Amino acid sequence: MQYSKMFIPTLKDSPADAEVVSHKLMVRAGMIRQVASGIYTILPMGLRVLRKVEQIIREEMDRIDSQETFLPSVQPAELWQESGRWDFYGKELLRFKDRHGREFCYGPTHEEIITDIVRKEVKSYKKLPLILYQIQTKFRDEVRPRYGIMRGREFMMKDAYSFHTDDASAKETYQKMAVAYENIFNRCGLGFKMVVADSGTIGGNFSHEFAVLADSGEDHIGFCDSCDYASNLERAEARAPSPAQDTPKLDNLKEVSTPGKKSVQEVAEFLSVLPQQIVKTIVMDSDQGLVAGLVRGDREINPIKLKNLIGAEWIRSADPKAISEETGIPLGFVGPVGLKLKVFADREVEASNNFVTGANKTDAHFTGVQINRDFKAEQIGDIRMVIEGDPCPKCASGTYQVKRGIEVGHIFILGTKYSKSMKAHFLDLNGKENPMVMGCYGVGVGRTAAAAIEQNHDEKGIIWPVPIAPFAVHIIPTNYSQDAVKKASDSAYKILQERNIEVLLDDRTDRMGVKLNDADLLGMPLQIIIGPKNIESGKVEVKVRKTGVSELHDFPQVLENIPAILKDLVS
Amino acid sequence: MQYSKMFIPTLKDSPADAEVVSHKLMVRAGMIRQVASGIYTILPMGLRVLRKVEQIIREEMDRIDSQETFLPSVQPAELWQESGRWDFYGKELLRFKDRHGREFCYGPTHEEIITDIVRKEVKSYKKLPLILYQIQTKFRDEVRPRYGIMRGREFMMKDAYSFHTDDASAKETYQKMAVAYENIFNRCGLGFKMVVADSGTIGGNFSHEFAVLADSGEDHIGFCDSCDYASNLERAEARAPSPAQDTPKLDNLKEVSTPGKKSVQEVAEFLSVLPQQIVKTIVMDSDQGLVAGLVRGDREINPIKLKNLIGAEWIRSADPKAISEETGIPLGFVGPVGLKLKVFADREVEASNNFVTGANKTDAHFTGVQINRDFKAEQIGDIRMVIEGDPCPKCASGTYQVKRGIEVGHIFILGTKYSKSMKAHFLDLNGKENPMVMGCYGVGVGRTAAAAIEQNHDEKGIIWPVPIAPFAVHIIPTNYSQDAVKKASDSAYKILQERNIEVLLDDRTDRMGVKLNDADLLGMPLQIIIGPKNIESGKVEVKVRKTGVSELHDFPQVLENIPAILKDLVS
Repeated sequence: MQYSKMFIPTLKDSPADAEVVSHKLMVRAGMIRQVASGIYTILPMGLRVLRKVEQIIREEMDRIDSQETFLPSVQPAELWQESGRWDFYGKELLRFKDRHGREFCYGPTHEEIITDIVRKEVKSYKKLPLILYQIQTKFRDEVRPRYGIMRGREFMMKDAYSFHTDDASAKETYQKMAVAYENIFNRCGLGFKMVVADSGTIGGNFSHEFAVLADSGEDHIGFCDSCDYASNLERAEARAPSPAQDTPKLDNLKEVSTPGKKSVQEVAEFLSVLPQQIVKTIVMDSDQGLVAGLVRGDREINPIKLKNLIGAEWIRSADPKAISEETGIPLGFVGPVGLKLKVFADREVEASNNFVTGANKTDAHFTGVQINRDFKAEQIGDIRMVIEGDPCPKCASGTYQVKRGIEVGHIFILGTKYSKSMKAHFLDLNGKENPMVMGCYGVGVGRTAAAAIEQNHDEKGIIWPVPIAPFAVHIIPTNYSQDAVKKASDSAYKILQERNIEVLLDDRTDRMGVKLNDADLLGMPLQIIIGPKNIESGKVEVKVRKTGVSELHDFPQVLENIPAILKDLVS
Repeated sequence: MQYSKMFIPTLKDSPADAEVVSHKLMVRAGMIRQVASGIYTILPMGLRVLRKVEQIIREEMDRIDSQETFLPSVQPAELWQESGRWDFYGKELLRFKDRHGREFCYGPTHEEIITDIVRKEVKSYKKLPLILYQIQTKFRDEVRPRYGIMRGREFMMKDAYSFHTDDASAKETYQKMAVAYENIFNRCGLGFKMVVADSGTIGGNFSHEFAVLADSGEDHIGFCDSCDYASNLERAEARAPSPAQDTPKLDNLKEVSTPGKKSVQEVAEFLSVLPQQIVKTIVMDSDQGLVAGLVRGDREINPIKLKNLIGAEWIRSADPKAISEETGIPLGFVGPVGLKLKVFADREVEASNNFVTGANKTDAHFTGVQINRDFKAEQIGDIRMVIEGDPCPKCASGTYQVKRGIEVGHIFILGTKYSKSMKAHFLDLNGKENPMVMGCYGVGVGRTAAAAIEQNHDEKGIIWPVPIAPFAVHIIPTNYSQDAVKKASDSAYKILQERNIEVLLDDRTDRMGVKLNDADLLGMPLQIIIGPKNIESGKVEVKVRKTGVSELHDFPQVLENIPAILKDLVS
């Protein structure tokens, strides 16, 4: 492609609202433009990258016999009502009515649509397993879209859905899909981790996230510095507390006055105890009503782990007013003893003795509190947030590191959540009707491209991994109006194209500085810089964008080596 | 692809609501499934065809330096308000509000979005002309979606937009685009006509439609049986009436009683005149208010031609009540003499003498009416509908034929309609600011595939043109569980795949009849039928789907000839 023929509106300055480097660079490199909050146009340079990511995804999907389909973006409300998500999904679901007043939504995901198709077309175990995927535009009406196309409202996504006779078959496909995802992100040139994740609004009982580690990531990833354990922090397991060595001497329950002392720190100082001797009672609101979670004073509660422990559909911090109204207890003094809410305790609370809790009345706490003696917990489990330095739950020697990550892929085993509610049944070998077991699997196409920039850039611009670069080679004639330079540049362009190497030729008459800056900003892996002096002595400069190393080579002989140089850059 | 691995839910019966053959066959061949009225899922077999059409489009767009972009489907109301179409577009525009109450629509077309991008990024004549295109999902909330994906509400479309310094540049691109479109439809194997068309809601001043002739078409195409003139009937020009040879004797205007005689036929019989001696006065409603169109009694008025003559934005039949209220004249007796509405006359009315019209009161007509004497017309022009047999407006010898056509592509010169209202200006060579001249160009991807079926099918099923067939070759082992048959089939499958020929291998254990019927229904251009007896004597049957001719060939030698046979089928 000749630069002059391509629409590449580069900018010197980043947009004012751009917080992360990929957003800044995609705008500056003329890849994207915002149309409305979280809604973007993908310009030609951007689309070249997205199409390459798509193609890699497509090849890896085809390899595991996943078949490409195209599902509608406008989805009838009836299907979402059947699955129960019409009421559940909230404002992120963009809803509207057609001219006849019928309700629809712009699909943020396609479980309902695909389940509807499959339940109508597949009746027998003989047709299972079945894996279908699509690459399509989705819309999620995020409260706060940001980071360019990384967290847009309208975005391109590959979503796959699988249907099975049983859990074993679903797990087999899940494993294949995990391998396909590893291939996809490896082929895109990304550093990533496959981490245990929560199923969120998709539902289901088992899931992993593929996270690209980058400071701009919105997720927190906890992973072991010794073994391969890795998890989204919202799911990261704590190691079970060691059982006590000696039988401890148990104090009696005693009410103490703690006037105005509400926070763990205030109470600890006032009573001269360590924070870990206090047990916090956190009241949460959920679809099961208000519930209380207990964690040690030096810990934070993990709402997702609590939600999963109690089997709730959703959970969130309770409104202080609602807590007072329902329990009659002032905030800061809630405790498990005599509390009328269901209580769920972290395992560390079970392992603690003689602790301090709120006394369920103003300005009072209990000391010498003991679980199972002074109060009963509905369930005991792992409901605390892990932090960096915590011991690994899997191996003996490792400890947690916590880094930020960008979720680029997510795989789920859904179980029978949708097939039961939507009656996607099949007849098994014995003619018995069963709900299908389902899985679903997503990759954010635009987000993968953005994540690649987060991992591959410098102060000058983007440094594309070869497999998803818009062009592999960028030819920069320093003075295209000079005959010898033009001739050599045009010839290099032609020869490389004939070798099926994608080339961008900067045929503009702009100053050399402008062209070199643009080349670094746009970030093609290899630059061939052709200047009048060098070409006179039969030389051109070949610069590797990643290392910045520039070397003089014989021209045109060097063109023979370009494929090999590019190959080296991939591995 | 092995049949057993592909999701191809074929059906014996057509859906009850399917009116046209492409709809029936696409559903029966497992290519599409309806999700809601006018909203479809494209299944793997269907998507293979659509992707091929897309790829052909892409190649032809790239060839004329049109660059691929991807514009958002969710578009802010503000841009549509700027262009004036927010109020104008009506219920076909699917409108909704986001979570913050801001108004958006699902893009039925993208003039506003692309004009917004270009006005922000292109300021100088040096960057023009610019052609951008996308292949994307659109939504038009049709009152009566039908014909499967041919007139769906959600559909895939290629839309291109061009920006120019002047009309000459726009016309040059328009011509290139016309050639690209001819290439696209030729490469898809379609018989089509490029016809003069109306600009409709897109606006602009010049347009052509690419129409595939087929009985199921919704458009009527008028074309000369002798020269290359072709036009959508709504724009088809009538040849100007020959001037009268002699000066006629003019009668006096005379009111006659015509009790209860309203229609042309009734009046003609009652007054013993020919229908062509009567002039009909048709009152239409438009954005310019009520207007009257005059055509001869044996003609029909063409509302589109009338709209264009008077320069209206829209026109439609007037409500009889509104006519009576505004003019005080009862329906059936309206005439141009003394009428208080603006009158527009067809050229044939100007060429007529002594005609009959309504007398603008109940049960009365005038005879001996004369234009310019008894009434004045605001304008005289070509506003009648042409019919089969009318003389060609372009050549001396030809006459009109009228056939039905399916609009698969449409190209427009928009002029400055959008660039003026949205202020898409550029600085010319002299530093002067001018609005850009624009063009826009669309191809319906799904509709092209459906039109191919309308033109290529028989009672057994689809007959795909080679370039857009899901697979080029369909291998049908009559008994796949028989060793020699399986071995030959697998080997043919492998060999053809190695030659980059797309093959579907029916590896199912179903009965031969089922497999042969499915093969004819699915419509791959070539079938290789491998049976136990033939293979014993080293033969296989090669059947051309289009001709139905089946011949025995030596196996595996015949595989060498498959590329040549396919090539023959294309030309």
